[in-house]
Amino acid sequence: MSTPAVQFWYEFGSTYSYVAAMRIERLAAERGGPVEWRPFLLGPIFAAQGWNDSPFNLFPAKGRYMWRDMERLCRREQLPFRKPSQFPRNGLLAARVALVARPEGWCAPFSRAVFHANFAEDRDISVWETVADLVASVGRDPAAVYERALSAENKEALKALTEEAQRCGIFGAPSFIVGGELFWGNDRLEDALDWYRQEIALPRAGATT
Amino acid sequence: MSTPAVQFWYEFGSTYSYVAAMRIERLAAERGGPVEWRPFLLGPIFAAQGWNDSPFNLFPAKGRYMWRDMERLCRREQLPFRKPSQFPRNGLLAARVALVARPEGWCAPFSRAVFHANFAEDRDISVWETVADLVASVGRDPAAVYERALSAENKEALKALTEEAQRCGIFGAPSFIVGGELFWGNDRLEDALDWYRQEIALPRAGATT
Repeated sequence: MSTPAVQFWYEFGSTYSYVAAMRIERLAAERGGPVEWRPFLLGPIFAAQGWNDSPFNLFPAKGRYMWRDMERLCRREQLPFRKPSQFPRNGLLAARVALVARPEGWCAPFSRAVFHANFAEDRDISVWETVADLVASVGRDPAAVYERALSAENKEALKALTEEAQRCGIFGAPSFIVGGELFWGNDRLEDALDWYRQEIALPRAGATT
Repeated sequence: MSTPAVQFWYEFGSTYSYVAAMRIERLAAERGGPVEWRPFLLGPIFAAQGWNDSPFNLFPAKGRYMWRDMERLCRREQLPFRKPSQFPRNGLLAARVALVARPEGWCAPFSRAVFHANFAEDRDISVWETVADLVASVGRDPAAVYERALSAENKEALKALTEEAQRCGIFGAPSFIVGGELFWGNDRLEDALDWYRQEIALPRAGATT
């Protein structure tokens, strides 16, 4: 039987995923709740809604608001933020690497490094030069990782994860799933962790006493 | 010189506007900040984005999520909630009445009554029979209100307010504007009130001492 966790579904091109990625481990440590990092791709999910771009580009008023909101939010959370010169950046390669990193235990630090490169340093995370740097920055060998990241099996795994996101009702990022319950947006991170404690951790603790 | 306030922009058909309408006066009393109720219409604003319906209907995954989120949110806020059998309901008539109510000081209780009818009692707020009941429930004479609500001047005033919303960058409801700063969504209500205190009330208090 799998142990339930707080599934953190994120996309490297997504602004609010950046904020959530930087907050989640601290909040999960304070409130309790194991976090499972689940990189996926928004592209196919937006395409299914009829969008060929980020809604923040398709709907300009929403986009202008989002950039201002990110400035305020990052200031409050004391997160560095520089508006990327390209948006959204293609997170495909970084997501493939993150999948390789998952079973090896370096997915969280690598993912934070990718988000920091994209949203604090305006680096192009879609190219291997950048991703290789970030792999090295968390103490892994870029060449060995590259090969596994681009294996047919790993490509398939990312595709499967994105399809799972869609099946679970995910329509944007970040999203959190806790015991089948979906929470959408960085704003709902605390609610997702509270749900874990109330609906999963406490009943389990009760059951074993 | 006009006194700055926390502008609360809402639409009677909007689910999250209901939650914000029920919370705002209590939170504003706790945190300080005069609230200005600003009913407007989302229809023309969605139309400008190319939508002829609520995004919660146009994008089914988003819609399914919203209804579940509303259940959770209303339970937490201890607000009654019944999913309306029709969504979104046309808030035009109620918004016209709310505009009549503003200068007379009964806009807030009337607006809460409309939201309660729509989202707790599943009543059809688009028809005069319902709206007349709600006007009477806050101690006003429906017949006298009806005439003023449907005057050319009042119709024009609602149109102008909706155009102002659009000019201010509003793209959804509820929204809050505080000293030119836009906040979107019930989730941002606390932020909007904090902004008022930090950026408007405290500097003003400093300036007068």
